[in-house]
Amino acid sequence: MKSLNIGLVGYGFMGRTHSNAYRKVNNFFDLDYKPVLKAVCARDAGKAAAFARKWGWESVESDWRKLLARDDIDLIDIASPNDTHAPIAIAAAKAGKMVLCEKPLAMTGAEGRTMVQAIEKARVPNMVWYNYRRVPAVTLAKELIDEGRLGRIFHYRAKFLQDWTISPELPQGGAGLWRLDVKVAGSGVTGDLLAHCIDTAVWLNGGIQTVNAMTETFVKKRKHNLTGAIQKVGIDDACAFLARFDNGSLATFESTRYARGHKALYTFEINGENASIAWDLHDLHRLQYFDHRDEGRVRGWRSIHVTDGDQPYMKHWWVPGLQIGYEHTFVHQVADFIQGLSSGAPASPTFRDALETQYVCDAVLQSAKTQKWQPVKRP
Amino acid sequence: MKSLNIGLVGYGFMGRTHSNAYRKVNNFFDLDYKPVLKAVCARDAGKAAAFARKWGWESVESDWRKLLARDDIDLIDIASPNDTHAPIAIAAAKAGKMVLCEKPLAMTGAEGRTMVQAIEKARVPNMVWYNYRRVPAVTLAKELIDEGRLGRIFHYRAKFLQDWTISPELPQGGAGLWRLDVKVAGSGVTGDLLAHCIDTAVWLNGGIQTVNAMTETFVKKRKHNLTGAIQKVGIDDACAFLARFDNGSLATFESTRYARGHKALYTFEINGENASIAWDLHDLHRLQYFDHRDEGRVRGWRSIHVTDGDQPYMKHWWVPGLQIGYEHTFVHQVADFIQGLSSGAPASPTFRDALETQYVCDAVLQSAKTQKWQPVKRP
Amino acid sequence: MKSLNIGLVGYGFMGRTHSNAYRKVNNFFDLDYKPVLKAVCARDAGKAAAFARKWGWESVESDWRKLLARDDIDLIDIASPNDTHAPIAIAAAKAGKMVLCEKPLAMTGAEGRTMVQAIEKARVPNMVWYNYRRVPAVTLAKELIDEGRLGRIFHYRAKFLQDWTISPELPQGGAGLWRLDVKVAGSGVTGDLLAHCIDTAVWLNGGIQTVNAMTETFVKKRKHNLTGAIQKVGIDDACAFLARFDNGSLATFESTRYARGHKALYTFEINGENASIAWDLHDLHRLQYFDHRDEGRVRGWRSIHVTDGDQPYMKHWWVPGLQIGYEHTFVHQVADFIQGLSSGAPASPTFRDALETQYVCDAVLQSAKTQKWQPVKRP
Amino acid sequence: MKSLNIGLVGYGFMGRTHSNAYRKVNNFFDLDYKPVLKAVCARDAGKAAAFARKWGWESVESDWRKLLARDDIDLIDIASPNDTHAPIAIAAAKAGKMVLCEKPLAMTGAEGRTMVQAIEKARVPNMVWYNYRRVPAVTLAKELIDEGRLGRIFHYRAKFLQDWTISPELPQGGAGLWRLDVKVAGSGVTGDLLAHCIDTAVWLNGGIQTVNAMTETFVKKRKHNLTGAIQKVGIDDACAFLARFDNGSLATFESTRYARGHKALYTFEINGENASIAWDLHDLHRLQYFDHRDEGRVRGWRSIHVTDGDQPYMKHWWVPGLQIGYEHTFVHQVADFIQGLSSGAPASPTFRDALETQYVCDAVLQSAKTQKWQPVKRP
Repeated sequence: MKSLNIGLVGYGFMGRTHSNAYRKVNNFFDLDYKPVLKAVCARDAGKAAAFARKWGWESVESDWRKLLARDDIDLIDIASPNDTHAPIAIAAAKAGKMVLCEKPLAMTGAEGRTMVQAIEKARVPNMVWYNYRRVPAVTLAKELIDEGRLGRIFHYRAKFLQDWTISPELPQGGAGLWRLDVKVAGSGVTGDLLAHCIDTAVWLNGGIQTVNAMTETFVKKRKHNLTGAIQKVGIDDACAFLARFDNGSLATFESTRYARGHKALYTFEINGENASIAWDLHDLHRLQYFDHRDEGRVRGWRSIHVTDGDQPYMKHWWVPGLQIGYEHTFVHQVADFIQGLSSGAPASPTFRDALETQYVCDAVLQSAKTQKWQPVKRP
Repeated sequence: MKSLNIGLVGYGFMGRTHSNAYRKVNNFFDLDYKPVLKAVCARDAGKAAAFARKWGWESVESDWRKLLARDDIDLIDIASPNDTHAPIAIAAAKAGKMVLCEKPLAMTGAEGRTMVQAIEKARVPNMVWYNYRRVPAVTLAKELIDEGRLGRIFHYRAKFLQDWTISPELPQGGAGLWRLDVKVAGSGVTGDLLAHCIDTAVWLNGGIQTVNAMTETFVKKRKHNLTGAIQKVGIDDACAFLARFDNGSLATFESTRYARGHKALYTFEINGENASIAWDLHDLHRLQYFDHRDEGRVRGWRSIHVTDGDQPYMKHWWVPGLQIGYEHTFVHQVADFIQGLSSGAPASPTFRDALETQYVCDAVLQSAKTQKWQPVKRP
Repeated sequence: MKSLNIGLVGYGFMGRTHSNAYRKVNNFFDLDYKPVLKAVCARDAGKAAAFARKWGWESVESDWRKLLARDDIDLIDIASPNDTHAPIAIAAAKAGKMVLCEKPLAMTGAEGRTMVQAIEKARVPNMVWYNYRRVPAVTLAKELIDEGRLGRIFHYRAKFLQDWTISPELPQGGAGLWRLDVKVAGSGVTGDLLAHCIDTAVWLNGGIQTVNAMTETFVKKRKHNLTGAIQKVGIDDACAFLARFDNGSLATFESTRYARGHKALYTFEINGENASIAWDLHDLHRLQYFDHRDEGRVRGWRSIHVTDGDQPYMKHWWVPGLQIGYEHTFVHQVADFIQGLSSGAPASPTFRDALETQYVCDAVLQSAKTQKWQPVKRP
Repeated sequence: MKSLNIGLVGYGFMGRTHSNAYRKVNNFFDLDYKPVLKAVCARDAGKAAAFARKWGWESVESDWRKLLARDDIDLIDIASPNDTHAPIAIAAAKAGKMVLCEKPLAMTGAEGRTMVQAIEKARVPNMVWYNYRRVPAVTLAKELIDEGRLGRIFHYRAKFLQDWTISPELPQGGAGLWRLDVKVAGSGVTGDLLAHCIDTAVWLNGGIQTVNAMTETFVKKRKHNLTGAIQKVGIDDACAFLARFDNGSLATFESTRYARGHKALYTFEINGENASIAWDLHDLHRLQYFDHRDEGRVRGWRSIHVTDGDQPYMKHWWVPGLQIGYEHTFVHQVADFIQGLSSGAPASPTFRDALETQYVCDAVLQSAKTQKWQPVKRP
């Protein structure tokens, strides 16, 4: 088994999910490569060191440029805030490193395009962490659609509902709260949550042609977490949009952080001529499936408990009936990335795949501004 | 359309469900007979008169013997407390009336047997109101089982859980509370609630051979509702039993009025070699169905919304997706009774059918007393 | 008890629901008036007569003008297709009759306005059959919102999903299929299904300011049911729209008849600062309620089984745990209408109330055409 | 951080869950000890070596006696079949090792008692892997009960339903199938599945006084997996029993491997005077909670998504809304064991705690044989 030396940038929530994935993947998957936790990098060297001790990273860097310069690093994994993705990814590509990048790929489509160009010029293996593609139930949905079971698609609908920013007392910006700071995050729910919905949708249902969006910022001013200054809130607290896909289907998308009672309720449903599929992150191990070809009297939505060996990824885990959770999607993504290295067929979504979501987000945010339908532009 | 002149005894909860059924049945079903609300009978003539006005009963009697003596009555419907079933039913049979009787048929198996003998000697049409057989989802379950879809049956489990008698302040006996008075009710949850579970079970899964029960009375003394006297509670508050069916399957049954959070949660589940079925009174319009012959990857419990025209009884009601409720089971039972009159194939359960449940209840109560397995005796 | 003599126009699906309501209401509610099924009117006298026999209507008319001319009729109930609502309602008002009208009130807002003017000029009691307001769970939602439990409202979302027109072989027009004929129905899902969603939304959450819609007709041509001619389909098969309410909340609405697996899935959810509510027509007896003020560790969506005596309308029916169904909403509406007659406080929605939905539908259809945000105009 | 050197016996399903727990625990919990994967032991040295490579065990033994003799081992973890628990545990205790043992503790109560005696004589830290106590939702249930929220308890009911042995073609015995071989497993569903139910029940609801059981073996003969010989099946395929607890509550327990449609459906429900709790392994991250003290109109079962930081164990994992799975219960158990080492308050269930379940299982199996109520004997 060959080593795959990882250099991780960032030690937050995503730094943890990635570290866990690298540590677990070879225990459950037979692979040609074994990720080695070579170095973690963060501006605060003390925090990086504590994180390294906790997770077994062999060394610490406090400047990502130094990390990129190290010969013992094969792969740069970017798990730092959105505004750092482009510079690190482009430099890493130039340094000939493989690059994994947290989602969303970029702050804008234009920025994302420069990243894709750099990555493709360097011809380095690359992937973006749209982890929900690898929930077994979601992967199963993809298989069912690709097998043509749904027939012509009429409708797609997705939501990502949270409720953690309702309090006007919640500050914005700084550690742990950068997602509320538009300068760091680029946007609010659109880039954070709808990006997930769009990535899945495009993967399952093909390209989006045109969108029509509205956004809202319910709490207009918040204190900054570090400076204490009261500042205008620049992000979108909520965003909903209508869309039309290339295949003629209609869609509604919605995301908010003001939906009381929902912590991370990502749901999607797709209605086809012959069958429909629905899924929900709060019970991620289940897929709802309705097949109109079932005999009429006993037709009903099937609640599929996706824990059997013949369902995606599940033969690697425990026994039927015993569910896995959120973290496992990252393990699957590492496993698939490594299998892509071996096979030469890159795991999706690549940077190029993820750029599509960026273009849709751009159209969504522009539509919210212009109050008009916007085509998705792919310059 | 011929008239079917009804004489109803009792004006309580069941008096209402039956009156409603008689009034509605011809609006929804094409039948040869039309029930006519001829007379309602109750000891309290004033209350009977008020009830008659509310429901359109043409006349009132305060002595059921007089009701039986009337020539203009074709059918006696017994909806009065359990201890009145036998005398009225036997006398009605002797008078040559058709007899419908609320469940449970009798106070004991022995009493029930005398009723069956009288009814069968008189050869009068008869039926017992085990209404849950005619929930469309339950009838559908019966059809699926009769079609052999489940294969060999391994398990049956049923529960009927309520929580309305938890308070020790609740009085027993008298109007509205006779179900707590053992002299009137015969038993507690066994005759009231488990009788439903047993009737369905025997109908769906065949005869019960042997049972092993425990009962409990949690509140030992209660005030009598009318006299105010503190008296020993004679009924079973809770009863659970193990059973073995003739077909070799194993069963658990349980009923209580002390299950906080459940109002009338009658549930059953049946597990066969090839398929399983589950149902729940709190969502009575749904049937859960699992078919192992479905393709493995997309196998799951189907939540069947039983509101389509090809599902039992539903073509008579509204349109797909629109649910009916509790009261409709009584309408179906009247419709089936009348169709039985026309066709000569009596609607079930007849008195004889319902006697079986009585025998099982006897064995259950005896087992609770002897603390031993008891065969179901059919003398 | 006074008589309230009803003259019903139409004998289809809605003719049945109304007839049932009139027949049942006095059995369950203590009221000052008793509806009398005086006459049913339809162009086909034979079918009207058969309907009258089935439901107990005393007489039959084949011209609604004659019905309106009868002195023994107090109230005209319009249950005929949408294009007949205006002429009948206006003439009935002029004749001094009370008027009940099926939803949607009119073909357009302009037409609806003339109806309201006629009704208000005549000062006759009036009501529109937006029956879902009177599902007990929905009425409970209204109470909770009016009590201020939700706090500031952020989001409203509603859907009405069906799947009965997916087959291109389904004809349009004529008996039973007039809802597919744009000349008779006025529009497709917008007037038929979204009208329900809008009525509830406006009732629960106040006025809608502005909308942005898309519509689609998936099957472009269908055979006419009667003539056999292949004709362009004029209705909207699907419609989704974004909206902003007067109270600052954001909304998404969607309806389609192409959502495989859903028969009549009307759902709504409303998210407030402190609490959220959700409801679903396929399990109409349940209300989902999340209250953030519950203690954190044991906070969760409550599945409220709305069958208790202290919940709206339920004391009139059976006992806790036993559900009612779709038809009961019409009974409640008749009961409330009659109580409004007694009290002088008219039951909602009046014609004027229902006109609001008409205006929103107009804006929705116009937005779909112009592809722009449209304010809701109330001329 | 001190090292805790682990010697693991067994490399099957449980060998994997334990290995994973040791590897993960320090990434998520701040502890004084770090488990070191020192040696794995199995008769088949080749398979043990492969397992060691996969999981990072430093060395391999093929005789557990040798493992016990090693000075560099602090703790013996027994994850081998049931018939090996006693000899290894007793020897390990004598060797002064800490001992963790998979459930069920022993083949019989008598055997278990000798193990407890040896362990307690040696005064070594010890624990049995009844992992379901540490599902966060189950731990939350325990907290709610201990806080007295339920009031007097009336009912307990538990089931553990599977369907993997329905086919008569399934062989018994040998690798992976020893659970069907009575000589190795001791019993069927009683020791394997009901043991879990009993452990949770005793933990949540106190001691069981008396039981009344029935068992069944549906498939009477099976081929042996290794020898090919057709042999009598000695295990119980299904077992159901009634029970009475010390606190006066009544219980039903049931387990089977013939419940089509259920893979590993462990459920329990407990009904108290004031509140009820229900849980289900197929959706293990949810707790159902009904509190009668909630206001009547909005009372309902709360579906608690147990993923918040103030709920048991969850602050160590991801963010609210993101679920963990089955494997995490083992991580929790290791964390608690280590915290017990630090604090001196041993983590439960100790061998002594787990012996109680053994005594109940004995009474259950004896009752099935004698067909009588059996007191739980604690010699």
